[in-house]
Amino acid sequence: MSEPGCQIVRTLDVVGEKWSLLIVRNALRGQTRFTQFRDQLGIPSDILSARLARLVEAGVLERRQYREPGSRERSSYHLTESGRGLRLVLAAMMQWSDEYRPAPQGVAAVVADPAGEALRLGFVDESGTVRDPAEAAIVPGPAATWRPEG
Amino acid sequence: MSEPGCQIVRTLDVVGEKWSLLIVRNALRGQTRFTQFRDQLGIPSDILSARLARLVEAGVLERRQYREPGSRERSSYHLTESGRGLRLVLAAMMQWSDEYRPAPQGVAAVVADPAGEALRLGFVDESGTVRDPAEAAIVPGPAATWRPEG
Repeated sequence: MSEPGCQIVRTLDVVGEKWSLLIVRNALRGQTRFTQFRDQLGIPSDILSARLARLVEAGVLERRQYREPGSRERSSYHLTESGRGLRLVLAAMMQWSDEYRPAPQGVAAVVADPAGEALRLGFVDESGTVRDPAEAAIVPGPAATWRPEG
Repeated sequence: MSEPGCQIVRTLDVVGEKWSLLIVRNALRGQTRFTQFRDQLGIPSDILSARLARLVEAGVLERRQYREPGSRERSSYHLTESGRGLRLVLAAMMQWSDEYRPAPQGVAAVVADPAGEALRLGFVDESGTVRDPAEAAIVPGPAATWRPEG
């Protein structure tokens, strides 16, 4: 893939494979075990193993060991700070769906603070003012190897 | 994939395939033509055709016809309002990379307003106050078919 320095490429390199973001979603719901992810998502075991390994390698999940009585030792998977930070990406996807592709059955999840007040993502300037999203553009940065087309 | 009403699933259904978000990224840079996407991204033509068709079908891109002198009529691809709305998702990915997976060579792109002032995504409450991202949680909504574990 071209542009290894592109931040979008760098994020997709971690969570761009099918299932990866849904594993993170389920981890944010409190799931930690292979069988929970497998049964709830319906992912084939070999693919789930590969995705979990990649998320651990990239520092999004941390692997811990546990042992239930009478069973062999198994791994559980826990979000790191970087993994929890991905709720920014998931919240953006939720907001885009709510705006442009709402589910006919209604809203399955919302972003809220601990008191239950709804939060939404906004583009905020350096003074802390929330700006019209139409003003936000992605433009070349100091290390850009691209420029807008004519 | 389970939970067809999940907004994350609904967004991934449009842009979850490999290359789709990079096509949108390049469209935001002003690219409109098949050959521009193909040459700049290095996508095989058959995959690019399939991705463009899906993005058109989902209303993210709009197909128009153009003809250059001496050539047959060709299609060009233009972001719709929904497609431009995906810069929310791309900006979230950029911000996550900048925070947790910065590129060694520096920042390839930034989000800015027309005057060049940097903007960043924040979680905003109903009164317009920008909140600590640690306060933002994804919780079940009215149509939820899931609940937090444990």
